[in-house]
Formats: sequence, structure tokens, C-alpha cells
Amino acid sequence: MVEFIREMRQGLIVRTPVVIVASDFWDDYYQAVMEGVVLSRAPQARIVRFPLQERFNVVAAAWALMCSLDYFPRGSVFLVVVDPGVGTERKPIAMRFGHYFYVGPDNGIPYPLARRVDNNVEIVEIEPRNAISATFHGRDLFAPVAGEIAKKLLVQDPEDILLAEFGNEVSGLKKLEIKRVGLGERGIIVYIDVFGNVITNISGSILEGTHCEVSIGGQSFEMSFHRTFEEGEEKKPFIIKGSCDTFEIVRKQGNAARAFPRIQVGSPIMIEAKS
Amino acid sequence: MVEFIREMRQGLIVRTPVVIVASDFWDDYYQAVMEGVVLSRAPQARIVRFPLQERFNVVAAAWALMCSLDYFPRGSVFLVVVDPGVGTERKPIAMRFGHYFYVGPDNGIPYPLARRVDNNVEIVEIEPRNAISATFHGRDLFAPVAGEIAKKLLVQDPEDILLAEFGNEVSGLKKLEIKRVGLGERGIIVYIDVFGNVITNISGSILEGTHCEVSIGGQSFEMSFHRTFEEGEEKKPFIIKGSCDTFEIVRKQGNAARAFPRIQVGSPIMIEAKS
Amino acid sequence: MVEFIREMRQGLIVRTPVVIVASDFWDDYYQAVMEGVVLSRAPQARIVRFPLQERFNVVAAAWALMCSLDYFPRGSVFLVVVDPGVGTERKPIAMRFGHYFYVGPDNGIPYPLARRVDNNVEIVEIEPRNAISATFHGRDLFAPVAGEIAKKLLVQDPEDILLAEFGNEVSGLKKLEIKRVGLGERGIIVYIDVFGNVITNISGSILEGTHCEVSIGGQSFEMSFHRTFEEGEEKKPFIIKGSCDTFEIVRKQGNAARAFPRIQVGSPIMIEAKS
Repeated sequence: MVEFIREMRQGLIVRTPVVIVASDFWDDYYQAVMEGVVLSRAPQARIVRFPLQERFNVVAAAWALMCSLDYFPRGSVFLVVVDPGVGTERKPIAMRFGHYFYVGPDNGIPYPLARRVDNNVEIVEIEPRNAISATFHGRDLFAPVAGEIAKKLLVQDPEDILLAEFGNEVSGLKKLEIKRVGLGERGIIVYIDVFGNVITNISGSILEGTHCEVSIGGQSFEMSFHRTFEEGEEKKPFIIKGSCDTFEIVRKQGNAARAFPRIQVGSPIMIEAKS
Repeated sequence: MVEFIREMRQGLIVRTPVVIVASDFWDDYYQAVMEGVVLSRAPQARIVRFPLQERFNVVAAAWALMCSLDYFPRGSVFLVVVDPGVGTERKPIAMRFGHYFYVGPDNGIPYPLARRVDNNVEIVEIEPRNAISATFHGRDLFAPVAGEIAKKLLVQDPEDILLAEFGNEVSGLKKLEIKRVGLGERGIIVYIDVFGNVITNISGSILEGTHCEVSIGGQSFEMSFHRTFEEGEEKKPFIIKGSCDTFEIVRKQGNAARAFPRIQVGSPIMIEAKS
Repeated sequence: MVEFIREMRQGLIVRTPVVIVASDFWDDYYQAVMEGVVLSRAPQARIVRFPLQERFNVVAAAWALMCSLDYFPRGSVFLVVVDPGVGTERKPIAMRFGHYFYVGPDNGIPYPLARRVDNNVEIVEIEPRNAISATFHGRDLFAPVAGEIAKKLLVQDPEDILLAEFGNEVSGLKKLEIKRVGLGERGIIVYIDVFGNVITNISGSILEGTHCEVSIGGQSFEMSFHRTFEEGEEKKPFIIKGSCDTFEIVRKQGNAARAFPRIQVGSPIMIEAKS
């Protein structure tokens, strides 16, 4: 009992599941409504807003999540609503992958997340329990399930939570491969962030100051590699190794994406070091 | 006692009041300051940010709140600061309506909220307890009261909370009628969301694929009704039934509002189904 | 024990440290990642997002923080990542100033914060404990320390927390003076907010309706002083006393900054009352 009270005082007992609410409408009140639905079921949850710059873009969303997972605590629930196909045939799912959960459409986004943990995955197709709108499954279908999972996490370990009550098990996921490639290989733009940094899935090792040939949008550009933003040239796009350990085209305190108006997430890109 | 400890362990006892902070400046640090004021008084509160796309617009704010209330838990406190008249004669109020609370200016926004619960409403005019600025009542006048109410909610039921300590009771509210109308009736634009969806207060029943005549901005357009975004035409505005059960003019992965540059929240609109 | 249980029931015991996450990338998922890192270490923390409108701007960030500190509870941790020099020589620091904490780069922002409390300041240079990226110290270096401090705050008073475990003590801070000046003195623009209000560091007392001469961008303009937005002229810039008790150039439900396209944060400005 004394031990228990000490733990209480230290705030170690009351579990606080984290629910990450990722959407492409984080800047409107719809995001708040989903958060309200989660908190109605699990008032102890911690909500983290996960703003996605690209709207309707499953590649960008999947990339952002892949690069972020490891920074969230065990048992985190990712409620992900980037859902241009809302109300149509894509499956609404709840998925446990390792000690994390994904709730959202099966539209490609969950595929690379599940791949990270291989066999330790359980997926169910969510069965609606109540009337749902045709246009806001985030509120009517996904947030309630995310909230229920968060509630279970108050007293259960992530691995012990069964998803069967939310629907029938399904085996496959819609495929969306986002692999890392090397220098000299054909990669793609995977995200364009709020600074205008153009992020690729290309990884590798380049020496500071090395010149590179960057093929993008049907053209080739020479750019230098720099370790940090500060060390780069003024007003010219250059290359850095970004926070997800892949190359990015950036500008010092400026917007690199604007220099390449025709590119977008999904555009092919290749980088070759030239000395 | 054993029961109590079990409940503690399950996190069922520590109440966590939800304070929804709705403003038209959610994208600047002023929003954070209001949240700091609430948490200074009620550190256990859960804050939900409620971003409003339209600035200075009481109709849009009232609509967004009306469509969202039911998704928030009993005892939620809505701290609403859309306040172009800050520092002038509009009354600062705290209001209990049913098992919810509103704290903010009496500028039309609380009227339709109070109407939803009819007689079960208590309103007081907030009396400043300290020096307040002329330009940021959200921080100096409203957030402190929202925080105090949240603190009371830790140990009291919403219905038992008395607002008399914040000021004298007032009876009326500034009128702002936002009624739903039917097909063929004169409605208005009530919100334009972050996707550019143009939301009306018009409700009714239309069959999938039906052609409609939409009168807006002094012109008439023919549009089809579709159940979902995916089922709609490419690059052309069409009509769906939105998440608040009213019609919206939308474009598939595009911005419908930009096709009608002269319309805004408040503009009249009429929709007639032509079969 | 009875007392303890009553306190528990009232939620008074479980401490909930507030971590304010201020960044110039609050509108992208990087912000969420920092919050995940904090919650991984201190799941009981309350996160407040502190959005900064100006990117790469240490003056604007410092001003916003200076005007906000007092509204956050004792023991608040300010995790501040406005960091154009990331990966270069600026020192990463953790600082206790009075009963608050700052974690972020020593790039000028902490200087005016420390000045507010004079001698009651402890500063350490953060020593990395793990591999860190060259471009996202917010995630790899600062958020972990902010989370560790928040965890300590669950059981310790702010004044009792020692920062020595995070690195060696340093004495000085990079200097950034942002002083308030008076009418007729040379001030600067310190922030341009989301409404387009142009905020200065000029304070003083002017009577309602007084005409002023405003020197800005090499030109002089006549503007009137008004107490509130509502009382100002339509469509014309005028002056109010803002929420940080300094003068601002504003427009009624409009964007004043757009009327002065050449000014920016740091631009000199002078205001003289003409009666």
C-alpha cells in the first residue's frame, strides 16, 4: 500500500495512452471533433496532433509515419485519416503492429507500417456499430475505435489487446511499397515539408562539399552536398541528409520546392555524386 | 478501499475535464497563451484545439460548434474566442447549457448553442477580477473563467456547478438564427472548410446521380449529387451530403470555393433537385 | 490517508508538468515527433503547442515567449526550436530561470528570458547521450531533455531540479537585447501576427483619438490611436495598445502588414503623438 501510494504520488500508475491523430485536415475543426470522440471514450488519453502538409497523399502520409513511429511510446495508437476514398470500397481497419496500433483506411498507408514488424501483425475490418456518414469516417468509424483501444490500454498491455470485437480478421493489406534506394538509383520524392524541403527516399554516404548531379522533372542540376543548412550556399538549392536519414533538396532559410514547380510527391528523382 | 484502488489503477477516478479552445487565431501563439491560463488553474484539464478557418466570422464559428457539440464528453467547456468586437459593448459571458459550458463573448455564437437545450441554460455576465487588456479578453477574461470551471468539474457534476461567482445572471442572448432549410428553400453558406468545400444549411434527400440547379452568387449552375467524393466527377463541382447532414458543393481532391470567388459565409444559396 | 484519498479524488496530487513546444514548424509533423519524444519520457506531461508565425526568426520567437511566460504555471518547460543554425556552433542548452525551464539552442532567444529573473538562472550545455542527426536537434537533443525535466517535475519542485546531469554548466548566453522604448524613441518591429498586426516594442500613453506620426520603412504616415479594433477607422491602418502593452499597427478585420510590404521583424519604427 505504501509502495502503491508512492507510485501514485510519482504519477507512475495512472497509464496515459497516447493517441496520435494524423490527418490532412488538422487545420480545421474536423480534427478537433475526432479528438473529442477519442476523449469521450478515453478521457485519460494524451492526444498528439500530427499535421500532414500534403492533402490526399498516401505516400507522404506513410513516409511521415514511418519516420516517426520510433519516437512514440509503446502502446501508441495512430489514428490516421488521409482518406480521399472515404465512403467507397477501401476497407476501414484496425491493426496492431508490434506494440503499436493503426486505425484508419486500408489505402496503402498501413502497408509499410506493418512491414516494419513482419509477422507480429493483427488486422480486422472495422464493422460499424452505429449510423455513419458517407463523408467523415474519421469521426464516425475510426475515432471511436481508436478511443476504445486507448481505453483498453489503461489496464492492458498492447500485446494483450484483442481487436476481434471491432470486426473480422483480414489477412492482406493494400500494397504500397516505399523502399529506400541508394545513390545512382531511381528514387522518388516522398514528402515536401512546410519549409519547402524536398525529401527523397534516397540514402547513402556523401562527403561534405561533394558535387552531385540531381535528375528531377526531366532535367539535371548540379548541387553540392552539405551537412547542415548553415553550411550551404545562399539562395541556391543544395543537398543535405535529412532527419529520416535520406537526402533532401533544400535552400538556406528558403523554399527549395518553389524552384522546381513541376515536381510533387511521387515524382522520380536520381542523385549521383560526382567527386 | 480495494475497489477504490482498483478504480485508481484503471484511471477511472481522476476526472479529466475537456476544455475546447476554439479561436480564429489558433495558428499563432495567442492560442497557446489561453491554454496556459486554463492549465494554470486546472492542470488536469485536457485541451482540445478547435481551429476555425474563417476569421472574424460568428456564423462560421457557431455552425462549426453546433455540428461538433455532441462529439465531446459531458462537462466539456467550450472556450470560444472569435471576437472582432473585443473591448466594446458586447457582453463577456459564461453559460451552462445542458451539461456543457460556453465561455466567450455574447456575439451571436452562444445563441444557437443555447437553443439546442432550451430551458436548461444559465448565463452570467463575467465580471473582471483583475486588470484586463482592451484587445485580448480571451487571455484576460475568458480563459481564467474556463479554467475555474474546469477545476470545479474535477469534483462536481456539470449540473451542480454554479456560475454566480463569475458575475450576475443575465437572461437574454444576442440573437443569431442559423436554421436548417429544405431543398428549394433559400439557405446560406455557413462554412467554407480547409479543403474549399462550400457548406450550406440546406438539408433533404436526393437520389445518387440526380441533377440539381444551384443558385448562388446571382447565377445558376447545374450540378449532380453524389454520395461520396470518389464517386463524383473529375474537376467539376458537385454536391454531396456533408458530415453535418447538409449539402456541400465540393470538388474531387480540389477546391470548390475557388470556382465561386464571389461567395462567402453568409451568401444566399438555393438547391433544387431536377431528377 | 483519508485526506490523501480526498486529494486523489480531487486530482490534486498527480502533478502534471506543462511542456510548451514552441517551433516555427508547428504546422508539419516534425512538431508531433518532438511531442512524442517528450511523452515517451513523461507520459503525464501536458503539451501546449506554441505556434510561431515567423520562421527562422529569433527576435519574433523571443518576443512571443517574453509576452507569454507569466501565463504558464510554475514549473513549465519551454522546449523552443527555432533553429536556423542547427548542426553548427551555437550551443544546445538547458536552462532553469526562476521556476521555469528553457531547452533549445543558445541563439539569442534565451537571453531576454533569463534577464527577467536576473540571478536565479542555471545553464548547462547539453551533452548528447546518443547519436543525433545534423538537422533535427529538436527531436534528438532538445525534446529528450525537456521530457527528462518534465519527469523530474512529477516529484520535485522546480527549484530543486539540478541540470548538471545534462551537461556542464556555462555562464554566459548569446546576447539579444529586446528592450521596450518610449514614444518618440527608435523602436523595432518585434512580431507580425497571423492577423497581420504589426507589433512594436514601443510603449507609452496616448489618448483615444490622438493623431500620431509613424515613421517606418523610410516613410512617415499619419495614423490615429484607438483603444479597440471596433473603434478604429474602416480600411485604414491605425494604432492600438496590444496585448503585450506595446503599440501595434492594425486594420479593422484586415491585414495591416500588407499595407507595408517592405517592413519585417527587426525593421526600425518610431511613433510620435501629435495631439
